[in-house]
Amino acid sequence: MRIPSKKDKKSKKATASKSLGKAPGELVYTGDKENLETLLEVHEYTIDEHQTYETKQIKKVFDVKGNNRVTWINVNGLNNAEDITKIGEYFKIHPLILEDIVNTNQRPKIDEFDNYIFVVLKMLYHNKENELLTEHISFIIGTDYVLTFQETDEDIFNPIRKRFLNQKSRLRSMGSDYLAFSLMDAIIDNYAVVIETFGTKVELIEDELFLESPREDISRDIQYLKQDLLRLRRSILPSREVISRIVKSESELITVKTYEYLKDLQDHILQINDNIDLYREMVWGLMDMHMTTISNKMNGIMKVLTIISTIFIPLTFIVGVYGMNFNYIPELQYKYGYFALWGIMIILFLALLIFFRRKKWL
Amino acid sequence: MRIPSKKDKKSKKATASKSLGKAPGELVYTGDKENLETLLEVHEYTIDEHQTYETKQIKKVFDVKGNNRVTWINVNGLNNAEDITKIGEYFKIHPLILEDIVNTNQRPKIDEFDNYIFVVLKMLYHNKENELLTEHISFIIGTDYVLTFQETDEDIFNPIRKRFLNQKSRLRSMGSDYLAFSLMDAIIDNYAVVIETFGTKVELIEDELFLESPREDISRDIQYLKQDLLRLRRSILPSREVISRIVKSESELITVKTYEYLKDLQDHILQINDNIDLYREMVWGLMDMHMTTISNKMNGIMKVLTIISTIFIPLTFIVGVYGMNFNYIPELQYKYGYFALWGIMIILFLALLIFFRRKKWL
Amino acid sequence: MRIPSKKDKKSKKATASKSLGKAPGELVYTGDKENLETLLEVHEYTIDEHQTYETKQIKKVFDVKGNNRVTWINVNGLNNAEDITKIGEYFKIHPLILEDIVNTNQRPKIDEFDNYIFVVLKMLYHNKENELLTEHISFIIGTDYVLTFQETDEDIFNPIRKRFLNQKSRLRSMGSDYLAFSLMDAIIDNYAVVIETFGTKVELIEDELFLESPREDISRDIQYLKQDLLRLRRSILPSREVISRIVKSESELITVKTYEYLKDLQDHILQINDNIDLYREMVWGLMDMHMTTISNKMNGIMKVLTIISTIFIPLTFIVGVYGMNFNYIPELQYKYGYFALWGIMIILFLALLIFFRRKKWL
Amino acid sequence: MRIPSKKDKKSKKATASKSLGKAPGELVYTGDKENLETLLEVHEYTIDEHQTYETKQIKKVFDVKGNNRVTWINVNGLNNAEDITKIGEYFKIHPLILEDIVNTNQRPKIDEFDNYIFVVLKMLYHNKENELLTEHISFIIGTDYVLTFQETDEDIFNPIRKRFLNQKSRLRSMGSDYLAFSLMDAIIDNYAVVIETFGTKVELIEDELFLESPREDISRDIQYLKQDLLRLRRSILPSREVISRIVKSESELITVKTYEYLKDLQDHILQINDNIDLYREMVWGLMDMHMTTISNKMNGIMKVLTIISTIFIPLTFIVGVYGMNFNYIPELQYKYGYFALWGIMIILFLALLIFFRRKKWL
Amino acid sequence: MRIPSKKDKKSKKATASKSLGKAPGELVYTGDKENLETLLEVHEYTIDEHQTYETKQIKKVFDVKGNNRVTWINVNGLNNAEDITKIGEYFKIHPLILEDIVNTNQRPKIDEFDNYIFVVLKMLYHNKENELLTEHISFIIGTDYVLTFQETDEDIFNPIRKRFLNQKSRLRSMGSDYLAFSLMDAIIDNYAVVIETFGTKVELIEDELFLESPREDISRDIQYLKQDLLRLRRSILPSREVISRIVKSESELITVKTYEYLKDLQDHILQINDNIDLYREMVWGLMDMHMTTISNKMNGIMKVLTIISTIFIPLTFIVGVYGMNFNYIPELQYKYGYFALWGIMIILFLALLIFFRRKKWL
Ligand SMILES: [Mg+2]
Ligand SMILES: [Mg+2]
Ligand SMILES: [Mg+2]
Ligand SMILES: [Mg+2]
Ligand SMILES: [Mg+2]
Ligand SMILES: [Mg+2]
Ligand SMILES: [Mg+2]
Ligand SMILES: [Mg+2]
Ligand SMILES: [Mg+2]
Ligand SMILES: [Mg+2]
Ligand SMILES: [Mg+2]
Ligand SMILES: [Mg+2]
Ligand SMILES: [Mg+2]
Ligand SMILES: [Mg+2]
Ligand SMILES: [Mg+2]
Ligand SMILES: [Mg+2]
Ligand SMILES: [Mg+2]
Ligand SMILES: [Mg+2]
Ligand SMILES: [Mg+2]
Ligand SMILES: [Mg+2]
Ligand SMILES: [Mg+2]
Ligand SMILES: [Mg+2]
Ligand SMILES: [Mg+2]
Ligand SMILES: [Mg+2]
Ligand SMILES: [Mg+2]
Ligand SMILES: [Mg+2]
Ligand SMILES: [Mg+2]
Ligand SMILES: [Mg+2]
Ligand SMILES: [Mg+2]
Ligand SMILES: [Mg+2]
Ligand SMILES: [Mg+2]
Repeated sequence: MRIPSKKDKKSKKATASKSLGKAPGELVYTGDKENLETLLEVHEYTIDEHQTYETKQIKKVFDVKGNNRVTWINVNGLNNAEDITKIGEYFKIHPLILEDIVNTNQRPKIDEFDNYIFVVLKMLYHNKENELLTEHISFIIGTDYVLTFQETDEDIFNPIRKRFLNQKSRLRSMGSDYLAFSLMDAIIDNYAVVIETFGTKVELIEDELFLESPREDISRDIQYLKQDLLRLRRSILPSREVISRIVKSESELITVKTYEYLKDLQDHILQINDNIDLYREMVWGLMDMHMTTISNKMNGIMKVLTIISTIFIPLTFIVGVYGMNFNYIPELQYKYGYFALWGIMIILFLALLIFFRRKKWL
Repeated sequence: MRIPSKKDKKSKKATASKSLGKAPGELVYTGDKENLETLLEVHEYTIDEHQTYETKQIKKVFDVKGNNRVTWINVNGLNNAEDITKIGEYFKIHPLILEDIVNTNQRPKIDEFDNYIFVVLKMLYHNKENELLTEHISFIIGTDYVLTFQETDEDIFNPIRKRFLNQKSRLRSMGSDYLAFSLMDAIIDNYAVVIETFGTKVELIEDELFLESPREDISRDIQYLKQDLLRLRRSILPSREVISRIVKSESELITVKTYEYLKDLQDHILQINDNIDLYREMVWGLMDMHMTTISNKMNGIMKVLTIISTIFIPLTFIVGVYGMNFNYIPELQYKYGYFALWGIMIILFLALLIFFRRKKWL
Repeated sequence: MRIPSKKDKKSKKATASKSLGKAPGELVYTGDKENLETLLEVHEYTIDEHQTYETKQIKKVFDVKGNNRVTWINVNGLNNAEDITKIGEYFKIHPLILEDIVNTNQRPKIDEFDNYIFVVLKMLYHNKENELLTEHISFIIGTDYVLTFQETDEDIFNPIRKRFLNQKSRLRSMGSDYLAFSLMDAIIDNYAVVIETFGTKVELIEDELFLESPREDISRDIQYLKQDLLRLRRSILPSREVISRIVKSESELITVKTYEYLKDLQDHILQINDNIDLYREMVWGLMDMHMTTISNKMNGIMKVLTIISTIFIPLTFIVGVYGMNFNYIPELQYKYGYFALWGIMIILFLALLIFFRRKKWL
Repeated sequence: MRIPSKKDKKSKKATASKSLGKAPGELVYTGDKENLETLLEVHEYTIDEHQTYETKQIKKVFDVKGNNRVTWINVNGLNNAEDITKIGEYFKIHPLILEDIVNTNQRPKIDEFDNYIFVVLKMLYHNKENELLTEHISFIIGTDYVLTFQETDEDIFNPIRKRFLNQKSRLRSMGSDYLAFSLMDAIIDNYAVVIETFGTKVELIEDELFLESPREDISRDIQYLKQDLLRLRRSILPSREVISRIVKSESELITVKTYEYLKDLQDHILQINDNIDLYREMVWGLMDMHMTTISNKMNGIMKVLTIISTIFIPLTFIVGVYGMNFNYIPELQYKYGYFALWGIMIILFLALLIFFRRKKWL
Repeated sequence: MRIPSKKDKKSKKATASKSLGKAPGELVYTGDKENLETLLEVHEYTIDEHQTYETKQIKKVFDVKGNNRVTWINVNGLNNAEDITKIGEYFKIHPLILEDIVNTNQRPKIDEFDNYIFVVLKMLYHNKENELLTEHISFIIGTDYVLTFQETDEDIFNPIRKRFLNQKSRLRSMGSDYLAFSLMDAIIDNYAVVIETFGTKVELIEDELFLESPREDISRDIQYLKQDLLRLRRSILPSREVISRIVKSESELITVKTYEYLKDLQDHILQINDNIDLYREMVWGLMDMHMTTISNKMNGIMKVLTIISTIFIPLTFIVGVYGMNFNYIPELQYKYGYFALWGIMIILFLALLIFFRRKKWL
């Protein structure tokens, strides 16, 4: 799902009413990646071997548990309630958790059970066309397996897939908790990139505001930045508490060795929050600054108008006086009347110039 | 009760003084659904059977307790103090609780007693005419019964009434706590729909603000949005704490099996709060944006005025000069004086155009 | 004491310096109800009998304690340090507490001692002339007596005085803690009325702002609303914590039976706080809205000016051209020159009208 | 030290760099009361006797301890590091505490040691010339002595000096903790006076803003109020936590009897904080109100300009038409052409007046 | 690294993507001080002797541990991953900590291990060219050694290097925790200087705003101040929590004697935070004030325009009337018509002046 821009907002309208009146635990996919077949990507590994395959047959993966390996099952596509239910039943996942897995409106959360930990995050990334996508992603962290559920098969886990191939990588020698950490770490490192890209946009607009004549519609762009930030923030902010609760978790599924890595994750998410706060203040400041710029320009326009009017309106009055047709206007008879009047008008003109310079208008 | 719009505010005026000076525990209905007869809707069910009937005879329902079934008594109409008191006495409800049941000003709250849990929520929904209604609703959750008290017989519980008919539904096999959860869940799912509808309005106005010439009175609409949001928020916000306290409750009336469902409820209310916060920031941003738009338009108007004035005021002065009736104005005698003046004026005109282009006004 | 409006603020000036340099425990009345004699109103009651009298002789009430009845002594007038001291000594009240009783600047507070609980509140009410008054009121809650201290004998306790007469009222059968609750309840119910009246004012101004031409000085009224709300809030807000601490109190002076009633009090004060917050946001929004209205009107004025100027300034230039006195202006000789010029000017006029319509100024 | 106004800010510049690179515990006086000799004022008292003297010989006071009396040593002048060090050594005060005593940038704080409690406050008061001064003051509260350190010998402790003379005053019969309380109480009572004076200024400016034509430079005054409040707040706000921590202290140096008095101190500081918050909102509101006033005035000016222009610009065009020199302008030949034109112009004039009245501009 | 000003922002762009996809614990230097050789500065000391040397051979320092002395190894240059890794391995530092040491985006943090405490701060200082630099600095505090890691060999520790030479300095007689304190103290004292310098800038701009005609582009400067403050705040604010956690630490690496010194550090950082808050409010206030100034100036300009127009537009109309060429205009025949008209016009002129004075425009 793309971070909704102005145009595709309407497609979002029916979301909340979709699940209205449904019994709790009934699976309703609320996203827009519909009509996709569920595709499973499986990685099984120990320190000695690593095996991977893809399949659309759900049942094929149901013998992976309990074989002394760590297994990662990456489920792509959330719109087939039946498939998700099958997986849920095999791994004994609570029906309400399954509902959260397919409910793309679910905010980032963590839920600890005896046999697994459930985590929801939002995966943000730029695709090849450089569009910002946001995808609903869930984790089931079990003793020796990790399930991930995402809307499409596009994701940001390629560096981790590569690390599997390297036998010396820490990933191969550690358990399912470290695997889950690595996947979340990939997601959160991408937040940093997304925020950085956002920051670049903020600075571009700021640079433009500092120009003498920024575009008329720059306020529109600032408004878009505000909206984008509000939406980014909604996706990212709740992650902080999620990660903080994993760090504080006393579940046996999280081993001591992984603890330091999770704290590092927490560091990163705090760093990202600092940056969101910073850009928030900066974007709000842009609007204030734009208003000041508009006011300054208006001042400039008014000065020009006032200077011209103040000089020429009185002069026009004067020449009007001597355009009158009274029988007896003595000045009109003077030989050099016309030239004397020019003299007077030039003096008046200069006096007004001095007045404006005193007022610092020139 | 409708979310009060501008017109019906006056009808609300006397609310607080209505109960002024009354002894605590004296029942004073503060809403506007007066002169209604109390109507009771009763559902009794076990996993094996389900029975339902409506009655206006209060006493008829007083033999339902202790028959090994779960009973839901839905009381419609809060203006008959006597009826409410009778029910309260039979179910041993504290007089102050009865007072809260009929006091539509009561904010969402929870109160735990040994024999029952008392919950107040606000039910928000669009009726058939698509008006947004808000109704005061209270729950008494006992060991094997749930009482609900609402102002009118219009409500949003139809999906639950249907679920009763399905013997396999979870509702039929679980206790009164799950029934109460289902009813509250219906209410909170409707909050999501109401907020979503509000969000659509916000986006419509935003779209209009991005137009070249939004309506003059759009600021009025933004103001209405602000007021609506403030009122929505007041109805919904306190629910968060209510639900959070049910989740943390150690009452024996809440069974372990229902706990996961209540946590799910809490998720939903948090999600709704996120959205309220988002729309709040967006609505406030609309006002800022509107101000910027107004200022931008004023700038445009001023530019037109200044350009026209700056060009023609000096020219008008010049032609005024040669309209003077001095005896001796040498230029007037030149054969091509008139045409020379036109040349000068055209040059001046062009010079000013270049000046405006330099200033980026054209 | 009235909520100070613009005019009587000056009379408040010397308050803080009044008690400057005084030793702690020295009684300094800081209010403006000076030169009043202390008047005591006494109610003694059991479930069987009720007796009431008024007296100005302080010592007369000193035999009321320990006679198995509940006694309410309502002390009116705080400016006689000597009288207050006598009462304080008889009931063994700490000198610092006596200081708080007469110090009208004391914010709402609660202080628990072994033999009594001390509570300060602000009593807000409209008097017969419909002026909003605020009065400093203190409670001493003992085992079988309640003392109240207020600045004048005007108060809002009449409904309670009536309830004394009704032998079946709960008041007659319960202890001093319930009496204290009833008195505080009366005060807090009046907050609701005061806030509601304030809300009506807010809505009146809002309605006026929505008019085409609100009064010029409406910003003054909004400013007064702001100030009034700030002052109301300062009187009411601290009550929330006071009531919350009574509810959580473990003093033996508060019996279990009264606990539910105190929680109800807490509900009411929370409700009132919700409303204060709501009106706060609304009043601040009024200012924003007023600014937008002003800007909109300015836009309208500027448009009229610009349309008129843009049409007539060029036309005036043109007629000026043919008012010049050059010897040779060929157009002036054309038979229908004058009418041709009118044609040109009408075309120019229409072209400008079309231009303005395109700009949506007309 | 005066609360720095615009003019004396520059003298403050070097403060932070003064102590840069110094080892911790090195005494650096950072204030501006330099070149003063250290002056000690000593009060020794029991309930039976009271003795007081002044001296510049530091060693003279070193036999006061342990003589069964309460001793107050008031040290005036902080710029002689050597003197402060001598006193510190005799009373066994930690070098870092001595550093805080002479560091006028130190914010209000409390530090508890086994043998003494250390408190820093800011003393605010108006001197005889009615200038607001702020002075750094520190307390060392020992078993039977109190040391105070202030920058100059001007202070606000005279009422306490007088109370020493009265054998019946509570001060004479209680210990060093009550003495310390009395001194701090004097300081905090003065905060109330300072805040009240500030409030008077706020109300004066508010009154002026409500006038038809406030001074042009009133925004400057509002800006000064903002700055003053920010600086007042910085001096006073941290005191709240200091006092709150004294109240909660479990040090043996604070006796039970003094506890009620300290709670009273806390009441006062909370009251002062309420007032600071109130004035803060009021001052910020003044700026908003001033902006509205400016906009309203601009509207008035624009209306006058637009009315005049809209009436006379078209009329001037018309008279221009009949000032043209075309050979054939039929209207000019009509006998009553001139008077007819006047008629038309008067009708136009009246029509425009009606138009303006409709627009509510007149 | 300099606090990025407008110009060098672009160089910052690639930071977050640099470490994207890297495995946790892989060292990626994210700063801009690249291509530097790692330079180690070593100080070994007891109370009796002090020895110092510099080296680029990492291994040379690996025999310093366990020789009963305190050793400070100051590592300059973070871009050689290999060197940092070698040091990390010798001192048994967790790979994630090494990552934080070279990651200049890491916000201030503290991490306690059994054998060492890890602290990150930002070092802010003005270099010789008076540019504000910000550098990422990390501390490893062991039993008898302190490691510091900074980006360049420029720093602010010279006063401490001098103190080493003085045998009587506290530094020589205390352990590694006091050494670490001294270094952090130097950093935090420099924050005070940086903030003070910032404050001076704020006051310069404030002074300029109070001038009659501040520079047109002063809003740009205010905007820069805002940005600078936001960035300063981001570097400094997290230090408060870091220091607070060192103070509360129960690590055995922190001795009781150092505790008072750390609390002093905490005092300083709180003081700095007070100042940041103060300047924040002041800078935001500057923008408001600037807006008011602009509006005031616009008012002034409008007044001049309106006065001139309102006086001369009607007069110009009048003279236009008598410039008309009607055959019969009786006034034109009057002998003193011209002079009479002048009289009327002067009266009109004076009447308008009086009108403006009444409106307080003159
Ligand atoms: Mg990162
Ligand atoms: Mg999303
Ligand atoms: Mg890290
Ligand atoms: Mg950061
Ligand atoms: Mg900014
Ligand atoms: Mg803003
Ligand atoms: Mg802002
Ligand atoms: Mg109630
Ligand atoms: Mg929902
Ligand atoms: Mg409601
Ligand atoms: Mg859910
Ligand atoms: Mg959401
Ligand atoms: Mg927005
Ligand atoms: Mg705003
Ligand atoms: Mg007191
Ligand atoms: Mg009051
Ligand atoms: Mg109430
Ligand atoms: Mg409410
Ligand atoms: Mg509003
Ligand atoms: Mg607002
Ligand atoms: Mg210190
Ligand atoms: Mg100070
Ligand atoms: Mg006080
Ligand atoms: Mg107060
Ligand atoms: Mg205000
Ligand atoms: Mg404001
Ligand atoms: Mg940095
Ligand atoms: Mg410092
Ligand atoms: Mg400070
Ligand atoms: Mg300020
Ligand atoms: Mg502001």
